[in-house]
Amino acid sequence: MQCVYLDYNGTSPIFPEVSREVLPYVTSCFGNPSSSHAHGVASKAAVDLARKRVAALIGCDEDEIVFTCSGTESDNWALLGALRQHASTAAAGDRSGAPHIVSSAIEHPAVLEQLRDLQRRGAADFTLVGVGPEGAVCAREVAEAVTERTVLVTLMHSNNEVGSLQPVAEVARLCRERGILCHTDAAQSLGKVKIDVRELGVDMLTIVGHKFGAPKGIAALYIRREVLADFPPFLLGGGQEGGKRAGTESTAMIVGLGKACQIALDEADATTAHMRKLRDLLLASLGRRLPPGTLSRVHGPSDVARRLPNTLSIAVDGIRAAPLLKRIGDRFAASAGAACHSKPADGSAAADCPKISAVLRAMGVPPSLAVGTIRLSVGRHTTADEVERGADILAAAIRQELSAAA
Amino acid sequence: MQCVYLDYNGTSPIFPEVSREVLPYVTSCFGNPSSSHAHGVASKAAVDLARKRVAALIGCDEDEIVFTCSGTESDNWALLGALRQHASTAAAGDRSGAPHIVSSAIEHPAVLEQLRDLQRRGAADFTLVGVGPEGAVCAREVAEAVTERTVLVTLMHSNNEVGSLQPVAEVARLCRERGILCHTDAAQSLGKVKIDVRELGVDMLTIVGHKFGAPKGIAALYIRREVLADFPPFLLGGGQEGGKRAGTESTAMIVGLGKACQIALDEADATTAHMRKLRDLLLASLGRRLPPGTLSRVHGPSDVARRLPNTLSIAVDGIRAAPLLKRIGDRFAASAGAACHSKPADGSAAADCPKISAVLRAMGVPPSLAVGTIRLSVGRHTTADEVERGADILAAAIRQELSAAA
Repeated sequence: MQCVYLDYNGTSPIFPEVSREVLPYVTSCFGNPSSSHAHGVASKAAVDLARKRVAALIGCDEDEIVFTCSGTESDNWALLGALRQHASTAAAGDRSGAPHIVSSAIEHPAVLEQLRDLQRRGAADFTLVGVGPEGAVCAREVAEAVTERTVLVTLMHSNNEVGSLQPVAEVARLCRERGILCHTDAAQSLGKVKIDVRELGVDMLTIVGHKFGAPKGIAALYIRREVLADFPPFLLGGGQEGGKRAGTESTAMIVGLGKACQIALDEADATTAHMRKLRDLLLASLGRRLPPGTLSRVHGPSDVARRLPNTLSIAVDGIRAAPLLKRIGDRFAASAGAACHSKPADGSAAADCPKISAVLRAMGVPPSLAVGTIRLSVGRHTTADEVERGADILAAAIRQELSAAA
Repeated sequence: MQCVYLDYNGTSPIFPEVSREVLPYVTSCFGNPSSSHAHGVASKAAVDLARKRVAALIGCDEDEIVFTCSGTESDNWALLGALRQHASTAAAGDRSGAPHIVSSAIEHPAVLEQLRDLQRRGAADFTLVGVGPEGAVCAREVAEAVTERTVLVTLMHSNNEVGSLQPVAEVARLCRERGILCHTDAAQSLGKVKIDVRELGVDMLTIVGHKFGAPKGIAALYIRREVLADFPPFLLGGGQEGGKRAGTESTAMIVGLGKACQIALDEADATTAHMRKLRDLLLASLGRRLPPGTLSRVHGPSDVARRLPNTLSIAVDGIRAAPLLKRIGDRFAASAGAACHSKPADGSAAADCPKISAVLRAMGVPPSLAVGTIRLSVGRHTTADEVERGADILAAAIRQELSAAA
């Protein structure tokens, strides 16, 4: 498809090495890993190898990795599991009132919608910590939001829209001091920056394959060994995944996630450097093609060390990003907001409706700039040529829209 | 792999036509269906086509199909969703005590383990109806088990181990008369016998792709339109699946399920006839190769119209099926119990432990015969030659074991 792809944060192309390893498992290798015959044994070995590779990427043991089907499932499970584990402990009786969760205003809907549902059902209360103008949470505010009833803090590792890295290590430390579980959704960080769960100190971490080269439909939840023993399963049935997640293993997808993790580990430094170089080239190329001052703002941390290396969220005053991107959508792929958010939860059609991103709102971005915000994200297979072609297409569309409005 | 495959009820080989349609979606077609650019639009079209094909197989509308990642997820969701929907209605106040679910003793663990967990947590009570010696539930007993507090009846469409078809239409009728939701797990029936959900009259039906030619890791839940509107989602987050099941769509797997459903619909009569012919050939071939009386019993309904056309569960007195099948597992694939059950839920290693199948126990099969039970299941790609080779291998292994014991 002749379409410049600058939407890696939405989803990544499937890496060719991943495709090659997945192919046998969507053709001839079909055994059920639970079966004791040759077909089953071969599938089980493939799942075992994948688990090793996922564990290696984040520096944990294999049995601390449980495969799931999406970041949403991992996030939902982390929240519901923490609550149910708490309910079954003696501590539940000690703390009066509903259990309490601390999170941030810029989390993925898989966290925010689950929190709202829990509150609606009276199962938990929550507090959302805000972010500064650069899209980062302050650890001190998390500490202040924690109450006697807090059982979990969940804070994303990096933000999907503006790329701001969050103070997860600091938050994990304060959680551990207070005996509170700590979860982080690392969907946007893996394959872009290095993560070692022992250094990070979290109890749970969400891994999402399709953000770094695996197919869509596979994810995992890291659960620290000490927490895992009593952690309640989310899906109940057969004894798969050490009894922690029932359901026949999605062998092909699991193999894909494993290979993507191996690549991410092997190429960590090179990938980060490549992303940063092309992201910076993209900004410079756009700048050259647009009248001075057109790019009103680059969202996210100005300190590049505190931003994902691949993410460039820019604001152009006077344009409406969503319809603009739709117009050039056959040649140019980027997002006006996170793709997952582009449809309302009630399923109604509202493709053209410029619903202002919750992340940008939380950062205090004025509506006119939020509406004109385009999220560009590069990746492993982005080339300098693609960046230049992309800058041509996007700059032309912006200039056209600005002159039509003038 | 030179291994005779007679374990279709455990999992089916991926059909070649399915592989061909899946391949692009694990290589070059990677767009996120929620994205508005060309990559996203192409993926969305693929998901839409798959949904049409799934709906066509069971005779419902597209928007009554919600994709999930496993039969386990579909079953778990049906139960938890029915309970939560009930809790949010006025009727919840009218019925005192915990809500009640009726099911059967031979359900898949995805139903039974969820029921046990609900009871442990005080969220619901349940009654399990038993089965007759042929493995079939009696609808009258279901009617008798229903109480004022019953909110759901869940009864599998056919049993995975002995192939007994259950009186789901009759049960659905009595549920509707009493305003009770009715769910059926049709994991083992689709692709083997025809199902029309309007005729069947159920409110929910579980569809599992890997039992009839799709890869593992994709399933669906049919939810009747009138129930769907208020039915609570299981996974919360983005607005995917009409707001009913959040999480980025597993495009490749969904495409695979769609194609498998199309094949199942197109070849329905031919497949049933092919399965029945080869299943009967298998029984005859084994009979010819074994001393008279060795096959002590064929489990399941003696009326073949009330048994899955592909399933042959046989009992041989004096053998231990699990270790026998393990010994010949490099050349011959079948099951001593459902594959999903072969590991205990606590994750401990017990591969050789002859845990007697709950289904056979419910049928009143004596332990010595249960231990000697082998489940053989044929499918679309089973050939007469494979059946003959399989009968050779299995009969030799049985004769060897019997003479060693003598």
